[in-house]
Amino acid sequence: MRKIDVCLSPDLIHLYELSGKAVVAVDIFRATSCMVTAFAHGAAEIVPVEQVDLCESYREKGYLVSAERNGITPEGFDFDNSPFSYQVEKVKGAKICVTTTNGTVAIRRSETAAALYVGAFLNISRVVEALKAWEGDALVVCAGWKGKPNLEDTLFAGAVIDLLTGQYEVADDAALMAWKNYNVAAKDLLTAVKNSSHVNRLLKLGIERDIAFCLEFDRYSVLPTWDGQRLIDTNL
Amino acid sequence: MRKIDVCLSPDLIHLYELSGKAVVAVDIFRATSCMVTAFAHGAAEIVPVEQVDLCESYREKGYLVSAERNGITPEGFDFDNSPFSYQVEKVKGAKICVTTTNGTVAIRRSETAAALYVGAFLNISRVVEALKAWEGDALVVCAGWKGKPNLEDTLFAGAVIDLLTGQYEVADDAALMAWKNYNVAAKDLLTAVKNSSHVNRLLKLGIERDIAFCLEFDRYSVLPTWDGQRLIDTNL
Repeated sequence: MRKIDVCLSPDLIHLYELSGKAVVAVDIFRATSCMVTAFAHGAAEIVPVEQVDLCESYREKGYLVSAERNGITPEGFDFDNSPFSYQVEKVKGAKICVTTTNGTVAIRRSETAAALYVGAFLNISRVVEALKAWEGDALVVCAGWKGKPNLEDTLFAGAVIDLLTGQYEVADDAALMAWKNYNVAAKDLLTAVKNSSHVNRLLKLGIERDIAFCLEFDRYSVLPTWDGQRLIDTNL
Repeated sequence: MRKIDVCLSPDLIHLYELSGKAVVAVDIFRATSCMVTAFAHGAAEIVPVEQVDLCESYREKGYLVSAERNGITPEGFDFDNSPFSYQVEKVKGAKICVTTTNGTVAIRRSETAAALYVGAFLNISRVVEALKAWEGDALVVCAGWKGKPNLEDTLFAGAVIDLLTGQYEVADDAALMAWKNYNVAAKDLLTAVKNSSHVNRLLKLGIERDIAFCLEFDRYSVLPTWDGQRLIDTNL
């Protein structure tokens, strides 16, 4: 049977073989939830980059730009890192360049995978469908927080594994632990994540509604997919 | 309140501040379980080293030598990586040099901590007592498997946190997840770990009795402690 594994942090990605695999990059709070929201509101493409300066330079190329560091948006960018920021008219048809503390790192470090999707609870069924259609092994790459594993991305990985029961088998202990954590938390994700350090960091930023929003399953049916240079929405 | 955190892999240790902290290094299957067993049978000191060659060279200095790579012992060493290997007369009073795939890495990378203990289920109450007596923060460093997190070391970390409830608070999500995983598995650790990849690797080596042995709580009351150059047993 096909195998699914979980890389709990981009700082561990050197330990995982990406070639031939379908990778799902996830940063629930909030980068990949934002990207899914942006595509659902008509974004044409998203370029994830690792540096704020590089992101800013995309404005000259006709992109809208979005940046976040430590949960906060520097001056002069079009979007902050809230999914509500992307639920506006100007997103329709826009090309957007994004840099964030963790999520864009997870995506760019995964780009040598055979297929690379961006996942969130908001589009989890599309992710699961894509992995059901995939014929090889799969890996969920969690963005974590500055290299450390975090709860919400791990729970997402566990949810994907849970939804793929019987389709994939668990490859290794990180995947097994993610799955167990999800099983414990599944009935009430919001309460489960309220104990997490990252959520406490975010709550201090006053974004309770972002947190509840990012934990909604299947609000959108887009699937942001890496085409070698950018993320586009595909209908697999 | 004091905080306790968990580093799920030696490959993530650069993300953790060690200075001022008490660190517990753990490699349940089987390095730290072996070390605890060796001290319980009278070993005088244990020097953990990262290289097989370096380990072998300690023989000239009057040490017994123990090596393991990928679960197997190379030719010409006194002990293999089974806790039963150390339950013999020659351990009494011996100085032993040890190298293993994962456990000795976790110990050596933790040596800048303010205090460094070697933990296993076999001596978990001694570890917990030492952390209760410690006045600063604490960190459990899991050996994992070649850089990847593993179930059994994470479960040990979760057990330590569980036994310190009310004494320390959880510092971050990795610790929170370890604790949750332990709570799920606590009633029957043996069944829980039988699903893990590392245990399947070990079962192929025919060491079922090692696995059951390494999951026993408090068989021994030693506390291997780093003195700056070697591990010795201390009575804190």
